[in-house]
Amino acid sequence: MVPDVQERGEAAPLKPVRLAIAGLGNVGRNFLAILQSQADLLERDGLTIRVVGAADSGGAAIDPDGLDPALLVATKQAGRSVARLPRVGRLDLPLGDLLDAARPDLFCEATPVDLRTGQPGLAAVRHALTHGIACVLANKGPLALAFQELAALSDLAGPGKPGLRFSACVGGALPTVNLGRRDLAGARITEIECILNGTSQGVLRAMEAGHSFDDAVAEMQRRGVAETDPSLDVDGWDQAVKLVILANAVLGRPTGLGDLTVRGIRDVTAAELRAAAARGERLVLLGRARRDAASGDWRFTVEPTCLPGAHPLARMGADEMGIVYRTDISGIIHATSEEVDAVPTAAAMLRDVLELHRLGALVRA
Amino acid sequence: MVPDVQERGEAAPLKPVRLAIAGLGNVGRNFLAILQSQADLLERDGLTIRVVGAADSGGAAIDPDGLDPALLVATKQAGRSVARLPRVGRLDLPLGDLLDAARPDLFCEATPVDLRTGQPGLAAVRHALTHGIACVLANKGPLALAFQELAALSDLAGPGKPGLRFSACVGGALPTVNLGRRDLAGARITEIECILNGTSQGVLRAMEAGHSFDDAVAEMQRRGVAETDPSLDVDGWDQAVKLVILANAVLGRPTGLGDLTVRGIRDVTAAELRAAAARGERLVLLGRARRDAASGDWRFTVEPTCLPGAHPLARMGADEMGIVYRTDISGIIHATSEEVDAVPTAAAMLRDVLELHRLGALVRA
Repeated sequence: MVPDVQERGEAAPLKPVRLAIAGLGNVGRNFLAILQSQADLLERDGLTIRVVGAADSGGAAIDPDGLDPALLVATKQAGRSVARLPRVGRLDLPLGDLLDAARPDLFCEATPVDLRTGQPGLAAVRHALTHGIACVLANKGPLALAFQELAALSDLAGPGKPGLRFSACVGGALPTVNLGRRDLAGARITEIECILNGTSQGVLRAMEAGHSFDDAVAEMQRRGVAETDPSLDVDGWDQAVKLVILANAVLGRPTGLGDLTVRGIRDVTAAELRAAAARGERLVLLGRARRDAASGDWRFTVEPTCLPGAHPLARMGADEMGIVYRTDISGIIHATSEEVDAVPTAAAMLRDVLELHRLGALVRA
Repeated sequence: MVPDVQERGEAAPLKPVRLAIAGLGNVGRNFLAILQSQADLLERDGLTIRVVGAADSGGAAIDPDGLDPALLVATKQAGRSVARLPRVGRLDLPLGDLLDAARPDLFCEATPVDLRTGQPGLAAVRHALTHGIACVLANKGPLALAFQELAALSDLAGPGKPGLRFSACVGGALPTVNLGRRDLAGARITEIECILNGTSQGVLRAMEAGHSFDDAVAEMQRRGVAETDPSLDVDGWDQAVKLVILANAVLGRPTGLGDLTVRGIRDVTAAELRAAAARGERLVLLGRARRDAASGDWRFTVEPTCLPGAHPLARMGADEMGIVYRTDISGIIHATSEEVDAVPTAAAMLRDVLELHRLGALVRA
């Protein structure tokens, strides 16, 4: 649905979308890989992508004629910075300078989460949006800290502004945001319940099976699911951030981390887990949004919670994430995804890229 | 995202969308009701709707200044045809004539399913699309019989053609089509499994609990879930039609009912159900799309199937419908909805209306 076709009545030539990506860890590398593996599907949609810029912690690489995604991935797998690539590498180049030099149509942001400052992602996304560059985010930090500001700079605020999408921030491939904003359009959401942190779900299920907390966490780190510092996961902050984004994006309520009551799973014992199971219940780390009966305002909590056995989120396996939306006219909608590595998170980024493409939002004015 | 704002740089006045609806049974009446109950949400989206035409089996009612939805609902609840309303009623008016006289921007089609001819819905949708009128369907017949033809007349084929959406045809409020087309964009779907017929799910679960087949069917009829002639449901045809639509809309494979192997639940015994449960399994009426290993082509089946206890669709209650998409890069996505009456189906129509509105597709050129 490229606008030129509507206006000129003729097929526009297939112009490559210029993409810059920041963050070449697990998610970023997988995203580059699926740009190649899914290239035929993209072409069927009339989309070709040219990677004109890529950045890691050492700096960036820029090539207006297109970087080789396979070379970028290989460089990272060899433990080197892309800033050291001959001819294209730019040591210590700040992200803003990368965007100015590479002039992409689309900026993909997959740098590590920093919940204190949101940097370097927050400044980069701000820079991109104010320069008319569409953004697809996998890094949760910017939205957790500055959702309203970034939304105001983007097409979320109205037409004529660059696209902003962030499926990958809120549950990997599980389309929590799209379900809430799009499939429940016209309905009033009355409650949200979610289990969106893979590490804590995996740890709790492992403890249920007899493993110690420490062994379970070590296993999640070994598998690349938990961070090197797993506290974001086990202390509930990753889940909290996702709930903050849902509150803003789906419930339309300006919300920050300070609005949430957050408790992680460090104090959960194997005995509690087994006792819940014996009662036919399931102890999970649950994110919840529900309206306070007295004030009518939303209350947001993240805490270990016993779910009745029949609850949709009580039936999930160790590798599943899930969400339940309760609504006034649309019944109860429940969704889960089973994801064993970072590929589905990258797939969620690609979903967003294709959506922006289909909206004609990747054609820069 | 109204195009005029982009082009003129000024806010366009809130122009009502002219809507005509055919079919004032359970779904149609509920749709009219939620147009009222959710009016404030629609307004927040910049959408006001004026019902300029409505049709039932007796004919139609037309009023360019807007019919009163509450009066239409009351008329139907009193067992009368809207064609008999003073001043606005038009006895025996064919749907094509309704569309020509009312000149709507949007046509909502909720007439009863006819799987032999698709009429009167098929002719009406054809007429609407060829006259540039956007369509939102709840009636499955037209798409089951003529998906490719109708898609070619609509925005599914490209820009410049009227919108065509059909969430409500494939699982009530469960967003099966949107999940497949939108959230799995860029991924290859490798298998679809679904339980989308509420009657057969309810009957099987009731038989599991000790009720006879006949009693269970009668109960589903009493609750308004099963049709007066429940054979469409218990013989698997309703599920089959939904699978046909998914094959066309999500897998992009031209498919008709004749491509499916279909077997319903008439021969399922309580003993079989209990034996499955004893093995920790679940006997369900499953719709399935999977690729044939030899030919690589899709095979579509609807048949009673034993699911392992851990299968996502084995965990659902009597009032739930569900779908599982298995993919190459997006993991396994599973969704269910719990719906006790026809309201969520109407909500799915409203979802589609809002999507077309947000795309600017309800503004007639």
